[in-house]
Amino acid sequence: MQRFIPHWITHYPKQHFSSDVLAGIVTAVLVLPQNLAYALLAGLPPQAGLLASIFPVIAYALWGSSMTQAVGPVAVTAIVTFSVLSPLAAPFSAEYVTLAAGLALFSGILVWLFGVLKLGFLSDLLSRPVVSGFISGAAVLIVISQLKVLLGLDAHGKDIWQLLVATLQALPQLKPTTTLIGAAGFAVLLFSKYFMGSVLLRMGVQKPRTDAVVRLMPLVVVVCATAAVMVLDLDLHHGVAVVGAIGQGGSGMGFILPEVSHIGLLALPALSVAFIGTVQNIGMAQALAVKRRERIDANQELVGLGASNMVAAFCGGMPVGGGISRTAVNVAAGAQTPLASVVAALSMLLILIVGTTGFTRMPLAVLAASIMVAALSMVDVGALRRAWRYDKADGVALLGTALGVVVFGLQWGIALGIGLSLASLLYRASTPHIAVMGRIVGTEHFRNVERHGVETIAGVVFLRVDESLFFGNLRAVEARLSAIVNHDPAVHDVVLVMSAVNRVDMTALEALTEICEDLGKRSIQLHLAEVKGPVQDRMARTPLWRSLTGRIHLSCNDAFEVLQGSSDS
Amino acid sequence: MQRFIPHWITHYPKQHFSSDVLAGIVTAVLVLPQNLAYALLAGLPPQAGLLASIFPVIAYALWGSSMTQAVGPVAVTAIVTFSVLSPLAAPFSAEYVTLAAGLALFSGILVWLFGVLKLGFLSDLLSRPVVSGFISGAAVLIVISQLKVLLGLDAHGKDIWQLLVATLQALPQLKPTTTLIGAAGFAVLLFSKYFMGSVLLRMGVQKPRTDAVVRLMPLVVVVCATAAVMVLDLDLHHGVAVVGAIGQGGSGMGFILPEVSHIGLLALPALSVAFIGTVQNIGMAQALAVKRRERIDANQELVGLGASNMVAAFCGGMPVGGGISRTAVNVAAGAQTPLASVVAALSMLLILIVGTTGFTRMPLAVLAASIMVAALSMVDVGALRRAWRYDKADGVALLGTALGVVVFGLQWGIALGIGLSLASLLYRASTPHIAVMGRIVGTEHFRNVERHGVETIAGVVFLRVDESLFFGNLRAVEARLSAIVNHDPAVHDVVLVMSAVNRVDMTALEALTEICEDLGKRSIQLHLAEVKGPVQDRMARTPLWRSLTGRIHLSCNDAFEVLQGSSDS
Repeated sequence: MQRFIPHWITHYPKQHFSSDVLAGIVTAVLVLPQNLAYALLAGLPPQAGLLASIFPVIAYALWGSSMTQAVGPVAVTAIVTFSVLSPLAAPFSAEYVTLAAGLALFSGILVWLFGVLKLGFLSDLLSRPVVSGFISGAAVLIVISQLKVLLGLDAHGKDIWQLLVATLQALPQLKPTTTLIGAAGFAVLLFSKYFMGSVLLRMGVQKPRTDAVVRLMPLVVVVCATAAVMVLDLDLHHGVAVVGAIGQGGSGMGFILPEVSHIGLLALPALSVAFIGTVQNIGMAQALAVKRRERIDANQELVGLGASNMVAAFCGGMPVGGGISRTAVNVAAGAQTPLASVVAALSMLLILIVGTTGFTRMPLAVLAASIMVAALSMVDVGALRRAWRYDKADGVALLGTALGVVVFGLQWGIALGIGLSLASLLYRASTPHIAVMGRIVGTEHFRNVERHGVETIAGVVFLRVDESLFFGNLRAVEARLSAIVNHDPAVHDVVLVMSAVNRVDMTALEALTEICEDLGKRSIQLHLAEVKGPVQDRMARTPLWRSLTGRIHLSCNDAFEVLQGSSDS
Repeated sequence: MQRFIPHWITHYPKQHFSSDVLAGIVTAVLVLPQNLAYALLAGLPPQAGLLASIFPVIAYALWGSSMTQAVGPVAVTAIVTFSVLSPLAAPFSAEYVTLAAGLALFSGILVWLFGVLKLGFLSDLLSRPVVSGFISGAAVLIVISQLKVLLGLDAHGKDIWQLLVATLQALPQLKPTTTLIGAAGFAVLLFSKYFMGSVLLRMGVQKPRTDAVVRLMPLVVVVCATAAVMVLDLDLHHGVAVVGAIGQGGSGMGFILPEVSHIGLLALPALSVAFIGTVQNIGMAQALAVKRRERIDANQELVGLGASNMVAAFCGGMPVGGGISRTAVNVAAGAQTPLASVVAALSMLLILIVGTTGFTRMPLAVLAASIMVAALSMVDVGALRRAWRYDKADGVALLGTALGVVVFGLQWGIALGIGLSLASLLYRASTPHIAVMGRIVGTEHFRNVERHGVETIAGVVFLRVDESLFFGNLRAVEARLSAIVNHDPAVHDVVLVMSAVNRVDMTALEALTEICEDLGKRSIQLHLAEVKGPVQDRMARTPLWRSLTGRIHLSCNDAFEVLQGSSDS
């Protein structure tokens, strides 16, 4: 029984109760516009966003592992949903909703399986630059996709480029009132996100209070815009698009039965959603755990996320994920345990039952503005600058992923990113750093002859290869060796320093055997030094060990003294 | 001018002239049946095989880099040609021949470009186990494809499995005379290849003479079988399939114009042929150079192979490559320079002009037998055993490639092989060997505490990660670190020994920074020791360097003494 009731319930720390309840209510209210906005971004009716922040949230609270991560409709999952489903059905149609439910179900099952089968480590396949590039690229897609809503334009496109072109072509038809609301909302949100905090501080408002005001602003903007629409009847007289009726009561619960026959159609999209959701969720949960000095269990996290999506499939049908901004709101509001999320979910349920008429005349342009501002904050130019400065290869992977996402779409972008990071890994391993070594006078330390003043023995070369030996780099080692022995015909002993060699594969072993034979015919002895235990165990069973012309030395220094002795004599 | 005339002509060593001329004539005669057989294997008329061993050979002699490699129709290239073209046109049809010419042209251009652009290193992508598995798998395909010819059956199939099934189903229709000739030829060739040498030796024949007899046997078998057909009119009365008329004179030169419009259709096949040809050729040329103490230039080698195929496109249209057995014949016959190949080509031209009537009644079954025997010798079970014993991952790559080739076809097989070797590379790098180290008493050497009796300092952990730190393995390092500090709460200093760390990527750097911060909050200092020059240069510009709680030590011993001092005080 204990196994099925999470630890945070059975051992609930009572002192957290009031802060959790308060945090839950605050979060529910603050993320309400987000829930509607992301549903629309995903191509789903607004109530899908509300439903997705009720039952899936409770499922995550029961099975997830993070104490404070808030699950629900999120930007990345929403844009991925739109991108994989819009080629299959018309957004906002009944068929589209059923497909979305299927997507949530199948991707939920996959994520759950990842967790149960302990495959959480697979998310290690993505480096941080790739994840960062992916999120930045997705943010650009989101901004482009919302532009038409912000300006009140009617534009459609098969892909993001066609949509952008259609949006630009439709510019002459822009609706002034809608554009005004959208642009004003955008400006206010942008200002409040980036400048309001410091302005308030300078005006003398104390620190925690400024944060609260800043966090409240999106809600204020939406409420004001809605009030304006209602008072001035902007939707009726000026064509301002609004959310529209939200299903209420029983039918509003939006119970949906995903069609199992869609599994063939949705297999690949579900895999994409599952993979992307996994990566985003684990990455974020981990960052959060580091900040809060907690440990998360990546696989348990996936079980929670999977369960959450499976529930989402039947309630509204919108795939969910762990959200950056909603989690930030939750933490800032004082949440300590998943009870806060449960309270938020129940508050949302109450709102849905009591009444959503207030939402029906909420202008879409202002929701688009809030999505665009959130998306802009996801573009991380600093990460590109840091990665580029640290290592060009990481910079290329980040930029490649971001451009790939924008140009070729979300899935191809991430595939390109993985390809780039693997290629750079392989390229690096194939072009190893090879150093000629000498002994620092008076010590037992060996260092690069080019970097340090060291002593050497005439006719003896100490060569350290800074990479495991494998099929990709043996030719480089061979080329360097030939260059050295051709350059100095007096060389009679070569010591291969294996301190950085963690593995020698079959190809490298055979090539090494040939090199040894080759050198032997030129009367050059090949020695090995500092061979690691596991490497030595494996090599000891091979022909190289028997045919080695030189000796195996425990350390460079041993080799140095033996060869110095024989050189002197 | 010097640049365009190869060194071996301008500096021809006169003492080699007679041995080169003799070797050329011998090779031309001995490989004659092979040339016909491989043309048929590729689905091309027999004269394509003869033409492919004339002008392309001269082109290679002018532009290649190997002194003794013999280029011409080879088994692997022939089966690849058949496998990529047979879905596009009916083998032996005029259209098929034009397609083959296009394949030779486009793949030739690609290989030539690989060479000119110095991309020879790309062949390093293939490990030896993958190449070995590929050749073994291709050999199995060859054996299966020739079975029907050996038995005189009429069987067709879209892929190798359908062909095998069709061959087995056609068994009741086997032609006894053809089968008899084929089986007898097969048995004699098999015997001569594997046993005749030792039998002759035991009979008292001297060593070089036995080799000559063994090498002559394929020709003897073909001549005898042809004689039998001619004397007994087996082709006319018993339905024994024979080579048939070979075009002679001008038309027999088989000048073919590849159609440029085929480029779309042939782009991928040409890439496959170019890649496989590149790998096989460079691999073999290198093995040969090692044996003969020569150096080859991989890129020059590709220029030669590319030029050779471009010429082949217009003369008979059969893609060519560097052949294992024809090179062996060439070397054994005493070839010293490419002059031998030129002489062989001219001899073949003479044969084609003087008369090929003798070939017209050569039975196909005996050619199939010679192909099958050659193919069987390409199956290298020993390589599998060695790879498996040395490293399971190499064994899996070899077996996977071989099975992939047989089950999914040549290109998918090699793709699977590359995938497997990259996956194992990545898997190994993601599961690094991590050792807790101690100092060997009385020395400055540090070794694994589990392998050696060493001294340690209470509360200080020396941890050596035997792998470059990158996005794939940082989590493993973090897990090990947490396990250690959770297991022993008295730990106050952790020294990360970086002697085997050749690179730290952006993801690992950030994770390391977080780990450092994490440990700092638990009052544990993180030190680094033996950081390599290039790694240190890069890290010195990052936040980790500034926020490091411990120090950077030049060597483990320095760290040991500093920490021992502070522990004692």
